Amino acid sequence: MSEDVVHVELGARSYPVWFRTDALTELTAHAAALAVTGKAIVVTDATVAALHAAPWVETLRARGVRVTLLVMPAGEAHKTLATVQGFYDAAVAAGVDRQTPVIAFGGGVVGDVAGFLAATLLRGLPFAQVPTTVLAQVDSSVGGKTGVNLAAGKNLVGAFHQPRWVFVDGALLRTLPRREIQSGLAEVIKHGALARPALLDAVAERAPRLLVGDAGALRAVIAPAVAVKAAVVAADEREQGQRAVLNLGHTLGHAIEAEAGYGALTHGEAVALGLRYAAWLSVHRAGLPPADAARIERALDAVDLPRDWRGWLRPEVIARVAKDKKVRGECVQFVLLAGLGRPRLETLPLSELSATAAAAA
Amino acid sequence: MSEDVVHVELGARSYPVWFRTDALTELTAHAAALAVTGKAIVVTDATVAALHAAPWVETLRARGVRVTLLVMPAGEAHKTLATVQGFYDAAVAAGVDRQTPVIAFGGGVVGDVAGFLAATLLRGLPFAQVPTTVLAQVDSSVGGKTGVNLAAGKNLVGAFHQPRWVFVDGALLRTLPRREIQSGLAEVIKHGALARPALLDAVAERAPRLLVGDAGALRAVIAPAVAVKAAVVAADEREQGQRAVLNLGHTLGHAIEAEAGYGALTHGEAVALGLRYAAWLSVHRAGLPPADAARIERALDAVDLPRDWRGWLRPEVIARVAKDKKVRGECVQFVLLAGLGRPRLETLPLSELSATAAAAA
Repeated sequence: MSEDVVHVELGARSYPVWFRTDALTELTAHAAALAVTGKAIVVTDATVAALHAAPWVETLRARGVRVTLLVMPAGEAHKTLATVQGFYDAAVAAGVDRQTPVIAFGGGVVGDVAGFLAATLLRGLPFAQVPTTVLAQVDSSVGGKTGVNLAAGKNLVGAFHQPRWVFVDGALLRTLPRREIQSGLAEVIKHGALARPALLDAVAERAPRLLVGDAGALRAVIAPAVAVKAAVVAADEREQGQRAVLNLGHTLGHAIEAEAGYGALTHGEAVALGLRYAAWLSVHRAGLPPADAARIERALDAVDLPRDWRGWLRPEVIARVAKDKKVRGECVQFVLLAGLGRPRLETLPLSELSATAAAAA
Repeated sequence: MSEDVVHVELGARSYPVWFRTDALTELTAHAAALAVTGKAIVVTDATVAALHAAPWVETLRARGVRVTLLVMPAGEAHKTLATVQGFYDAAVAAGVDRQTPVIAFGGGVVGDVAGFLAATLLRGLPFAQVPTTVLAQVDSSVGGKTGVNLAAGKNLVGAFHQPRWVFVDGALLRTLPRREIQSGLAEVIKHGALARPALLDAVAERAPRLLVGDAGALRAVIAPAVAVKAAVVAADEREQGQRAVLNLGHTLGHAIEAEAGYGALTHGEAVALGLRYAAWLSVHRAGLPPADAARIERALDAVDLPRDWRGWLRPEVIARVAKDKKVRGECVQFVLLAGLGRPRLETLPLSELSATAAAAA
């Protein structure tokens, strides 16, 4: 049931997401083909550089491509304008031209930083993604959202910039810690709830193999989850409307992640708490059958994602929701489920969010 | 012969450029209509704030719009990521939402900074332009190029982000120094050479009135020049090909401007030198009739723009050309004229640029 390729259909900006295992030789060929002026920029972080990116860059250099390797420290705390500024200067010093591709080789943070670099250096360079975490493979590498954090919040600065291709290699996940696998599976579960309910059961059934990083099991859930995301992005590239359904679990999730302090919870752990809240709210406000909410809960439980969302519905967290990008005036846009596969956008007054907190307690 | 409005035709992103005189009341109405959530960000510089923008913001506040006024120091030296970073933080602190428009009220530097802010804050906010210099009215406010400088060069970081509208008010030019008027007229002459040769003679004939800031004379040359730019942008929004003709005079001009040190020459003075070089090169390499080159020279002479381009063809300047965004590999794209109104793109090896320097001397 897994696919070799998913196409993101965006007219002239359409691109493939390839699914492979142990295929870095093929990746080298794709990268060399993209480097039409013989130059490339590869962005990674210190962790991934040591494990995968630096050796791979040598194979690309052996093909005659002049590679500028830009390495950032690992972690969300470095997803900043200061990091991007350093990369701008280094890329210009290395003689970047308008056809030099930027290749992101890493997790979501690397992809977001590299994508913003590609979106804004020389007003836009070709971009490609080699995601190395479940989270990046299933979610952040597809769809063209790029950006950095400000002190006031995550992803407040950014741009839409689609990659030319995304290369998903399951072998890159073998070095991933268990907690990072769990984190990415939260997004798989989200995609399942949004459009492919069978994915919820697939995750629950395969949980033991998924959690140890079994490449076959991961690919069997990642590829269909990417297909869900690709379809949503194709229908609404710039989040004018329906793409916002991808925020299921994220409005509260982002606020919890920030309140905990970045790094205390993984993104997926925070999203899992947000998904549980969204499921609860959907039962009470959108007619989601309780059995369907239970299917979501069961998948989250199977991969051991955190359960206590009620403890997070505190005034400080709600104050953070009020600063979300999705706030317009005094209302916040929430994604609810009328059923599995039937998301709908609802605009809730912030005051009501506080009220539901009391009701849930 | 002047128009009230020019439309930039870009499908769903089409927008009007309005030409008015003493019409800030109408501007207030447009701005209030754009501020659908009751908030707006106005970006200006200290000079324009004192002369025009701060009083106008009060009229917008009187209409009930909550305006965040962001003021940068005047000048190209402040067109930096540091300025943008400060504006990001201030805008977020003021409670920006995704529908809050960013209105640039100032010259080209303000428009570029405000546009980059609008392109990247919350991954894109509505944007509008109120250009207050001839240069900005005739050129930089139209077409969607935004950006900031790096230490290594001008406009190396940026994005394409089209405004919702551009409001050109001739009354705003009454406070403009003569040298700034001249600077903007260089771009009028460029647009004339590219597509409307009659503009060259119009500038030459009206020169005395233009140089004292006569609103009627300026409007008579600005509106047709904007029409030229609008047509080029409509045909090639993202400079995939033909839009590059707008770089006529700019490849060398940018290098001269940088070599002189920003502020020593105005942008238009540097472009005038580049236009004279392009005319000379076009006669020798592209078959431009010498009489047509003389028509360009005559217009530049009439408004007293600098003449000695040969003195600038130095190795240091050519080294700067080699860092231009338009360099691909070891070649640089140059715009030549086969005739007035007949631009063509030529790719020249950098070595040839040095050789022509020797031939021209």
